[in-house]
Amino acid sequence: MNDAAIGIFDSGMGGLTVMRALMARLPNERFLYLGDTARLPYGTKSADTVTRYAVQAAAALVRRRIKLLVVACNTASGVALPALHEAFAPLAVIDVIVPGAQAALAASPSGPIAVIATEGTVTAGAYPRAIHALAPGIAVSQQACPLFVPLAEEGLVDGEIVELVAHRYLDGLLAAKPTCLVLGCTHYPALKTVIGRIAGDGVTLVDSAATAAMAVEQRLRDDELGTQATAPSHRFLVTDAPDRFARVGQIFLGRPIDPATVELVDLQ
Amino acid sequence: MNDAAIGIFDSGMGGLTVMRALMARLPNERFLYLGDTARLPYGTKSADTVTRYAVQAAAALVRRRIKLLVVACNTASGVALPALHEAFAPLAVIDVIVPGAQAALAASPSGPIAVIATEGTVTAGAYPRAIHALAPGIAVSQQACPLFVPLAEEGLVDGEIVELVAHRYLDGLLAAKPTCLVLGCTHYPALKTVIGRIAGDGVTLVDSAATAAMAVEQRLRDDELGTQATAPSHRFLVTDAPDRFARVGQIFLGRPIDPATVELVDLQ
Repeated sequence: MNDAAIGIFDSGMGGLTVMRALMARLPNERFLYLGDTARLPYGTKSADTVTRYAVQAAAALVRRRIKLLVVACNTASGVALPALHEAFAPLAVIDVIVPGAQAALAASPSGPIAVIATEGTVTAGAYPRAIHALAPGIAVSQQACPLFVPLAEEGLVDGEIVELVAHRYLDGLLAAKPTCLVLGCTHYPALKTVIGRIAGDGVTLVDSAATAAMAVEQRLRDDELGTQATAPSHRFLVTDAPDRFARVGQIFLGRPIDPATVELVDLQ
Repeated sequence: MNDAAIGIFDSGMGGLTVMRALMARLPNERFLYLGDTARLPYGTKSADTVTRYAVQAAAALVRRRIKLLVVACNTASGVALPALHEAFAPLAVIDVIVPGAQAALAASPSGPIAVIATEGTVTAGAYPRAIHALAPGIAVSQQACPLFVPLAEEGLVDGEIVELVAHRYLDGLLAAKPTCLVLGCTHYPALKTVIGRIAGDGVTLVDSAATAAMAVEQRLRDDELGTQATAPSHRFLVTDAPDRFARVGQIFLGRPIDPATVELVDLQ
């Protein structure tokens, strides 16, 4: 048993959807979330830079004594896992790509599977690699959707603009008749209504937050790291604009964020 | 006379439109451009963070011996000028906001003036302050356009999506019947065709790049800093993805960028 917090990091606020799934599944745990808001987004940056940022973010969490690290950012999951394992072993590290791949295969065991993600995740080929590691022969297609993050961050999640942008990204992908569409960025579930409408009833949308939470629960059990604490706590570290984080973040977390629990930190 | 380079910095590639105007006006000068591509965009970040990044970027240029600093980023111009003057005096620092305000008043001496810019520039009130310093009574309205930068960076500069987004931002602003619209972000000239069509013939679009270049020329003359060099050189420093910078940056610069002239640097 271990009462230390579970550390979660993301480039900004999108990872709060993963924290939300974790809090639902593990209501007694303590959580410490880090959003690298001063350097977001990660999705358009190079693998080297994202890896450096991810290691700095994880180090800040490790300094505050966490018992497990959740990489809630798809882009960082796609490029930085080897560096994170090397830098912080034997700390348990759970990412969102492998659980996303598992969920996709559960929904669509024989494919084809379509993936939408950031440029960084698509370029790294992270989802095709994770899916093919589990099911080598399956057809996987992918598409970067760089406007989805700024649309979600502006709160533009439905209506004509979002419809047009979504058609632009999805029409080519849907031509391959996928049976499952992976939302490979933590911001994308905010646009789920429009994406689902365009994809149609025959396509299952997969969001890795819930599956990642299951993977964390399993790992806590395997390593006997579960808490006995009766007072769960939720704290937040950000690298820029804590007030904005508390205000906008509650949309992603699905509950209010007390500004007193958000601390500004410098990772450099 | 001084043969050192003119330093220019921006959060990314947008400032290359300012460098383009400078090269046209000062063809014999040497230029050293820094794009902080690892931490862009600045427009959605806090004034404190943008100021810290701007001072780090300027320091990297100063270490390479520049004779004048051009702050080609509107967001940094709007919040970081006092810190830059304090950190690097007596170095001459030219920003893009004051020249933009001058150009707006030249185009529209009695107003009303409308300004579109990033959230950071709008929140700082940088344009209204600069305009009112020159013409206290004039009516100024402003609007943040956060989707314009990702649209321009995706090369989506015309068509239905851009039209709809532009109407969303501009319709309210145009109701005040401005005679001049300031493009208060170096990315926005890429969307000039659509913005101009929606604004209509009676509205002059002002882009501060050309005016900033005139201000630099004037300052070189005043301080006797002009070059006698016969071999102008153009070099670039970036904090992430030099290949992408060379490839995409040429659109903003209006001429090819030799990848061998782009160097990766670490500002932290």
